[in-house]
Amino acid sequence: MNDTFLKACRGEAVPFTPIWIMRQAGRYLPDYQKVRGKVDFLTLCKTPELAAEVTIQPIDILKVDAAILFSDILIPVEAMGMNLEFHEKRGPVMTPAIRDENTVKKLLVPDPEEKMKFVMDTIRILRKELANKVPLIGFSGAPFTTATYMIEGGTSKNFLNTKRMIFQAPELFRALMDKITATVTEYLKAQIKAGTQAVQLFDTWGGIFSPQDFKAHALSYVKKIIHDLKKWLKAENISVPIIYFVGETAGLLEEIKEAGADVYGVDWRINLDDAIRRLGSSAVVQGNLDPLALFLPQNEIEQRVKDILSRAALAKGHIFNLGHGVVPETSPENVIALVDMVHRHSQRK
Amino acid sequence: MNDTFLKACRGEAVPFTPIWIMRQAGRYLPDYQKVRGKVDFLTLCKTPELAAEVTIQPIDILKVDAAILFSDILIPVEAMGMNLEFHEKRGPVMTPAIRDENTVKKLLVPDPEEKMKFVMDTIRILRKELANKVPLIGFSGAPFTTATYMIEGGTSKNFLNTKRMIFQAPELFRALMDKITATVTEYLKAQIKAGTQAVQLFDTWGGIFSPQDFKAHALSYVKKIIHDLKKWLKAENISVPIIYFVGETAGLLEEIKEAGADVYGVDWRINLDDAIRRLGSSAVVQGNLDPLALFLPQNEIEQRVKDILSRAALAKGHIFNLGHGVVPETSPENVIALVDMVHRHSQRK
Repeated sequence: MNDTFLKACRGEAVPFTPIWIMRQAGRYLPDYQKVRGKVDFLTLCKTPELAAEVTIQPIDILKVDAAILFSDILIPVEAMGMNLEFHEKRGPVMTPAIRDENTVKKLLVPDPEEKMKFVMDTIRILRKELANKVPLIGFSGAPFTTATYMIEGGTSKNFLNTKRMIFQAPELFRALMDKITATVTEYLKAQIKAGTQAVQLFDTWGGIFSPQDFKAHALSYVKKIIHDLKKWLKAENISVPIIYFVGETAGLLEEIKEAGADVYGVDWRINLDDAIRRLGSSAVVQGNLDPLALFLPQNEIEQRVKDILSRAALAKGHIFNLGHGVVPETSPENVIALVDMVHRHSQRK
Repeated sequence: MNDTFLKACRGEAVPFTPIWIMRQAGRYLPDYQKVRGKVDFLTLCKTPELAAEVTIQPIDILKVDAAILFSDILIPVEAMGMNLEFHEKRGPVMTPAIRDENTVKKLLVPDPEEKMKFVMDTIRILRKELANKVPLIGFSGAPFTTATYMIEGGTSKNFLNTKRMIFQAPELFRALMDKITATVTEYLKAQIKAGTQAVQLFDTWGGIFSPQDFKAHALSYVKKIIHDLKKWLKAENISVPIIYFVGETAGLLEEIKEAGADVYGVDWRINLDDAIRRLGSSAVVQGNLDPLALFLPQNEIEQRVKDILSRAALAKGHIFNLGHGVVPETSPENVIALVDMVHRHSQRK
């Protein structure tokens, strides 16, 4: 098995820097479009054979060092009892928006093998089909990011309803977060039991906070999840690295490093060496190329790859990635070239 | 005159910390709504008597220490030759989007007293009506932020078209930026000649960049404007502080401090003392309360005011402000209370 990714997660010596790409299974790939042409997005997430098929596509096409489960961070939201739809233009729409005690009370902490069995089935298929070629990453939205979708009923510009609840009805927010935290913990345990070899918590919207609010209203719940998972992993005698990704990390790194994760995602809005200095040199980092830098000519992409690799030398470990998901308009050729460049320029003699 | 704001901008000793609030003349104020009920937004910007009226409202209501010209950062875009409309839901829409050589060529570098005379007229009225009660701040969008609106044709989620032009047609982008830079320079000179006593450059979207790209594609043009303005101010023997505000500054402070501005805006995503350490303690800073923290109960707003004031002690000067514009849903009572708290808790004996 190419276990370079898992070794890097653990801060062990690796023959080259591993790379995977957020949303590597996605709309920029014609092969993905072919599958997606037959079914809508949510059906694709819920059909294990198809979800497994698109998960594997980038392994063969890009030669990345890890597969990531094809799914969506809003799957647990539906399992908790909200109605979920994906609109082509508006994006995800969840109803009814969670804004009062009554709607919070109605939410379930679902049994993942019952309400999200299709995810675990996808993982089981994938472990067979990947045949240990590369490790499989599972994931979940972190509680705060998940909560924003539930409170806003979709995406948001300034997260007014979310912050209003936090600032004006903190007990209600805590009740909601406790339910999401329990759901995410059980969901990740189920993914690990089904076979994922690493997990990533996506806190895409964590960066909308001041450090003080991030700590109180996002990080504290992530710490609980990671603490509980680590305890459980130890009892089960399983080794599964946990990655914590926050969007717009630059002002929050001193707080983020308290999460207890094995790997920290770093977006492109900060120089990687600066981020490592603030996380501490014992940190393992993942990142940090601007997804839109993939629109540069390949020789300039190559300069940026070399620059990031040299800045990463400060850290205990580095997994190359974009700072956010690859966008649909990206040329697959440039992504293929990126993976090759990272492998080539990071070879240890 | 209450010149506390101007003194703080220059890093001079002040009897208390001055405060003004981004978008202090705006939709959260019933008095503003009354005026706005009679005319659409663009007409309000273009009618000097009305623009002056809403500019003055928050001085009386909030007791802030500076007035800021009521206008919009897209006014120069229209003057450069684009068609500009404000839609209630979609926000500003500019046509045709600037994406090729032909559209860039057609853009003017307008004479401000000809194409934006209503702005200078507003300033002249304001200087009379303010009667030196508080200083008047003028402003412009910084070139990069202005360019995003022109290239995208409006607001954007990931600035795909803008970054695509930067990465794939850098000469075209430079030609566009040169025209905007010349426009902004002349526009600010005209505002100063008409009577503004400080100016702020808004680089609201500067934070979408990696440090390397920010430096090359946003900061370099701001440096040129500030350099040219300072030279001109010296020749004219006028003292007008220049404030540079970037949204999402946290990863870019080491770059931002090269701008040559007198004051640097800091948003709420970073602790103010951390920002000051990175800008250098000879910096004068402006910020950095989360606009949505105004939804907190007043005793908690007060804690945050004290916290920011104590973190600000490290800097050479501090002007209290929000990290971004006040949102329309904000209670005016809390804004009035905020101004009072800042004044009260910052009294020097």
